[in-house]
Amino acid sequence: MTAVTIAVPIVGLFGLLFAAWRYKWVASQPAGNETMQRIASQIQAGAMAFLKAEYTVLLGFLLVCAALLVASGAGQEKSHPLIAASFAMGALFSGLAGFFGMRVATLANVRTTNAARTGLGPALAIAFSGGAVMGLTVVGLGVFGIGILFPLYVAKFGSTPEAMVRVINVLTGFSFGASSVALFARVGGGIYTKAADVGADLVGKVEAGIPEDHPLNPATIADNVGDNVGDVAGMGADLFESYVGAIVGSMVLGISFMTLPEFKDSFQGMGPILLPLLLSAVGVIASVLGTFFVRVSEGGSPQKALNRGELIAAALMLVGSYFVIQTMMPSSWMVGDVKYTAFGTYAASLIGLACGILIGAVTEYYTGFGRKPVLEIAHQSVTGAATNIIAGLGTGMLSTAIPIILIAVAIIGAYHFAGLYGIAIAAVGMLSNTGIQLAVDAYGPISDNAGGIAEMSGMPPEVRERTDQLDAVGNTTAAIGKGFAIGSAALTALALFSAYMATAGMTSIDVAKPMVMSGLFLGAMMPFLFSALSMQAVGRAAKKMIEEVRRQFSSIPELKRALAIVKKHDHSPMDQWPAEDQKIMADAMSKVEYERCIAISTRASIREMIIPGLLAIVSPIGIGFGGGTEMLGGLLAGVTVSGVLLAIFQSNAGGAWDNAKKMIESKITVDGKTYGKGSDAHAAAVVGDTVGDPFKDTSGPSLNILLKLVSVTALVIAPWL
Amino acid sequence: MTAVTIAVPIVGLFGLLFAAWRYKWVASQPAGNETMQRIASQIQAGAMAFLKAEYTVLLGFLLVCAALLVASGAGQEKSHPLIAASFAMGALFSGLAGFFGMRVATLANVRTTNAARTGLGPALAIAFSGGAVMGLTVVGLGVFGIGILFPLYVAKFGSTPEAMVRVINVLTGFSFGASSVALFARVGGGIYTKAADVGADLVGKVEAGIPEDHPLNPATIADNVGDNVGDVAGMGADLFESYVGAIVGSMVLGISFMTLPEFKDSFQGMGPILLPLLLSAVGVIASVLGTFFVRVSEGGSPQKALNRGELIAAALMLVGSYFVIQTMMPSSWMVGDVKYTAFGTYAASLIGLACGILIGAVTEYYTGFGRKPVLEIAHQSVTGAATNIIAGLGTGMLSTAIPIILIAVAIIGAYHFAGLYGIAIAAVGMLSNTGIQLAVDAYGPISDNAGGIAEMSGMPPEVRERTDQLDAVGNTTAAIGKGFAIGSAALTALALFSAYMATAGMTSIDVAKPMVMSGLFLGAMMPFLFSALSMQAVGRAAKKMIEEVRRQFSSIPELKRALAIVKKHDHSPMDQWPAEDQKIMADAMSKVEYERCIAISTRASIREMIIPGLLAIVSPIGIGFGGGTEMLGGLLAGVTVSGVLLAIFQSNAGGAWDNAKKMIESKITVDGKTYGKGSDAHAAAVVGDTVGDPFKDTSGPSLNILLKLVSVTALVIAPWL
Repeated sequence: MTAVTIAVPIVGLFGLLFAAWRYKWVASQPAGNETMQRIASQIQAGAMAFLKAEYTVLLGFLLVCAALLVASGAGQEKSHPLIAASFAMGALFSGLAGFFGMRVATLANVRTTNAARTGLGPALAIAFSGGAVMGLTVVGLGVFGIGILFPLYVAKFGSTPEAMVRVINVLTGFSFGASSVALFARVGGGIYTKAADVGADLVGKVEAGIPEDHPLNPATIADNVGDNVGDVAGMGADLFESYVGAIVGSMVLGISFMTLPEFKDSFQGMGPILLPLLLSAVGVIASVLGTFFVRVSEGGSPQKALNRGELIAAALMLVGSYFVIQTMMPSSWMVGDVKYTAFGTYAASLIGLACGILIGAVTEYYTGFGRKPVLEIAHQSVTGAATNIIAGLGTGMLSTAIPIILIAVAIIGAYHFAGLYGIAIAAVGMLSNTGIQLAVDAYGPISDNAGGIAEMSGMPPEVRERTDQLDAVGNTTAAIGKGFAIGSAALTALALFSAYMATAGMTSIDVAKPMVMSGLFLGAMMPFLFSALSMQAVGRAAKKMIEEVRRQFSSIPELKRALAIVKKHDHSPMDQWPAEDQKIMADAMSKVEYERCIAISTRASIREMIIPGLLAIVSPIGIGFGGGTEMLGGLLAGVTVSGVLLAIFQSNAGGAWDNAKKMIESKITVDGKTYGKGSDAHAAAVVGDTVGDPFKDTSGPSLNILLKLVSVTALVIAPWL
Repeated sequence: MTAVTIAVPIVGLFGLLFAAWRYKWVASQPAGNETMQRIASQIQAGAMAFLKAEYTVLLGFLLVCAALLVASGAGQEKSHPLIAASFAMGALFSGLAGFFGMRVATLANVRTTNAARTGLGPALAIAFSGGAVMGLTVVGLGVFGIGILFPLYVAKFGSTPEAMVRVINVLTGFSFGASSVALFARVGGGIYTKAADVGADLVGKVEAGIPEDHPLNPATIADNVGDNVGDVAGMGADLFESYVGAIVGSMVLGISFMTLPEFKDSFQGMGPILLPLLLSAVGVIASVLGTFFVRVSEGGSPQKALNRGELIAAALMLVGSYFVIQTMMPSSWMVGDVKYTAFGTYAASLIGLACGILIGAVTEYYTGFGRKPVLEIAHQSVTGAATNIIAGLGTGMLSTAIPIILIAVAIIGAYHFAGLYGIAIAAVGMLSNTGIQLAVDAYGPISDNAGGIAEMSGMPPEVRERTDQLDAVGNTTAAIGKGFAIGSAALTALALFSAYMATAGMTSIDVAKPMVMSGLFLGAMMPFLFSALSMQAVGRAAKKMIEEVRRQFSSIPELKRALAIVKKHDHSPMDQWPAEDQKIMADAMSKVEYERCIAISTRASIREMIIPGLLAIVSPIGIGFGGGTEMLGGLLAGVTVSGVLLAIFQSNAGGAWDNAKKMIESKITVDGKTYGKGSDAHAAAVVGDTVGDPFKDTSGPSLNILLKLVSVTALVIAPWL
């Protein structure tokens, strides 16, 4: 055991060191001309201002939680006040993952723009390295954190089966801390980014007629900050939570093997508890190695480069996990009359991986540019906004069918091969390559930002073309990443669900009992309520943003004057304008009050994240103590099932609307007529895209975290119930 | 027992005779001038054509089902081939309820219009009498059908507890037959009405600039037929299914009391089995008496008149059910350590009633004209269609919270007072006044049709004003009726769920088991898939309708000419036009090919209803035989919970959008600016209304039936599992 417990945190540290190395490399790249640097530093300042405001608010909440955990842990046989320390560390690490992710993303964006001036290869290298820093930070912190805490707690509490229940309960605090921060980051980030986006779009693009990334658009910096806040920090926190949750959930379920005779030689019965940690450690190494294969030369395909990296990491994981499982588990064992094997455990982890990949592929089908469902939505835009909306809602609902069947098959398959532990290991298997998966995900918003900076700093068209090429790939990878996030959230929630039952000493959750059925109803309702609250929050925040942008357009005379000049020159590059006009433009840009828009988004998102966030934590505690363990079990089942469905529905509807709009922008032909930008069909598709924005970037992804947080809260309070 | 089993079918017959008497009265009223009669006969012919086509297709399906039931019932100890007879009778009665409902609605509509020429009171009397025929037909057929079959089966199989299991299983065929027809009626009707509505609206109103009820609109007859098909026959079939399902479900659960010593004196242990039948019989009488209090004089309030009738019926039920329960149940009994009382059973029935009323009130709050959520959607329309849609979706999702909490409280409360049987009795309690409830519901589309006929036949404004007054009340009652339908569907599904478990001999459905959890996921996904399929079906059917209306406008020269004349005279009444123009108009009206639009809606709805319908029946059978009883239990729980949530979400979002549009039509003021018909805000609200149409009239209400049908299918196949 000692060798393993030493190796795991060292691998975690290795991941972090690799991230640090890539970080330094990104930071050492040239940041371009003065304009670019000024814009980039504004985005960075905005991002940091948001994080500072968020963490300040969270600190109070976290202190209260920690105090409650200390108080509740005292004198408990199955827990200990140290759970507060795990909690604090989980929260801190989640915060650090967000911080470094944002930091590197706001460095990498402008450097990607600058590199795009010379070619596609260097630009991809920087954007992807930025993503890799995020990805490896997340998995490094996860593996390092649990890897350090676990042996410390074993040393303190001992390694008997009873002690192990206590050790891992105290460890669940880490997952709880990570989840709490994740929820606020995801909800707050989602509100931030959409409020800014809607403000920039509706007033800037639609009313004033300038692109959303135009430097005269007061909401443009906030919009770019929002991409980082939502897609980088939010996605990172989301996957950090799944990652940690799946590991901890598997560890809890691993305890039950300690008393089986076959496991005596597997690290004194600890093999199944250590296995998820070790699998994740192998995943860190596989991800690091995979990153070296992501490179492209001019004219090459960024998509292929990213795929190559992911495939190589997956292949390494496939081989590595086989040997790890054979080492950590006995070749076969009996539970009652059923025989399980190490190979079966390996099969369960593969089922998880396959399920994740297939859900990603289905997501890509339903939301991908040029795919049949998206084309259908584009066609339906010709008859107006109403048919566009109906088609999008229909596609989103339809797209739930195959992923749910896949999840159902994965649950049954993983259970068949390795029992409840198998379901948890399937989640770990799905998440083992989070490092490179997240690198690819985070690469998207960095490229998006790079394009924005190119636009704002008036770069020549070929630069924007190169960043657009990177960005287009980012949209596909984002879709697959979202599918992955949902699939892993479902399996992680189930792992936590089983862990909750084991900790609470329950053997069944019988929906035939009215209390459980009521819990199921209430749980299933939570994602609807949660979505409604976050959508309304976006609406309120966007309204404030719209008012502010309108105010600036109408009350800053320099801005008004410059807007007229922009219209006069239509879309010609700024450096071809007469010097006088350029001066007016520069003058106006120095008068635009970007920071007011940033402040509005920041304040609104921080304020609006509190009620949904508390709802997620207070509900399971209230139901658990008021209605008992079984009713809480019903609540968990309800929130998991309905949360997964609504998340898929909302994310895919949003993604499909977005790409339907893009398809019309690149022209479609219906019944012999061609529709493009500026057509009525396009206007209808813009409505769909705007409706889809809070779906896919605020409420949809927040649900992933909601269902994990509710489950982990239940797991944490289980010893007291 | 004999007295009760004789009394029940007689009361059922009494309800039917009352319906027949009101039917004759409605038919004996004058049907107005020639134009009115022509329009009315077109609507009636269209409605009957739809029913004929529907029943022809259904007949094949029903014969297959019946043959399967005969085959499967043979040699079964717990069942019998006679289940096919019950099935056939249930299907036939559901069909008859639809037939008579449509028949009377298509008589009452034009007679209401004609009566509105003299005053509000006579118009209300006819519209409400039409509704009462529908309501009493539904409850009369339900009580009569079960009331006749039950003693026959008892006579054949005996009345021991074992025989009773068989008797009631054979009886479930009645509920299954009713559900099957209901599903096709609801889905087919929903597709029919929305295809016609969208066609009439989009091309007629938007493109040609004539009102949707204008005689030159080729889709207008189909649109009016659709109101009958969807709202009268569909709603009737829906409530017939709930009504029958709740009774049969309670009877199944009543079997368990037969072996308790306290029940020896309660009709040889049959008291709890007979109770739901007797409660429903009392409800029939209460409903009949209630109808006599619905009358209004000129200048009075139709709303108050309807409320008075409902309140009196409810009060009668409150008193009547108390005495019935005291008679049928012993004053107290023990189940294990728990003591239950007759008063507790009464309390459970009251909880059901209260839950239904409160859900209705919440529905009214979230969707009512002038209410805050609807006003908010109207305000959000000012910034465009996207914000209108987001606000509507948010309101729909938010509106699920309180009804779900009410259902959860009702489940726990009814169980507390009277065990699982109490939950079933709560459903019976909620549905006991279905007679008058449905009368009030069906009154809405009759008034709506009456208004349409007034418009099409060029009646003077005061006639349309009176029918509009009746119609406005109809919108509120429809909202409450929808809330009632959803609440009763939820409790009925739970009663059927418990009945399924009792019949399959199960004691628990443990979601901790992976098969059950998978079933839960799959079940919860079904309503999403079902909604997607029905929304897409509406889209396809509407497209065909749009093309047909456009074709007529462009290829019938008389129609083109008349359209130009209508525009010339703007909105002045036809009888003030020059004789020549009137002649052109009359000429054009004889050339409009209404029947082609009717044929399109009929064909499309029949074709499109098949796949969703089969899905609802095949899924539980496949999961039951492939995955076992527990997995099927998980499926039922999933489909119930997610179906109720999606149904509330869709119905309320649709209702709120509809009224938000109406609020703008009667002018709203935002930030000092006023928005009315023709404003951009109105255009945005029309988009919301169009999106809401399939939500509230097709997919939403179909889900009610889906979840009951899946449950009743499980109950029917339970003996074989």
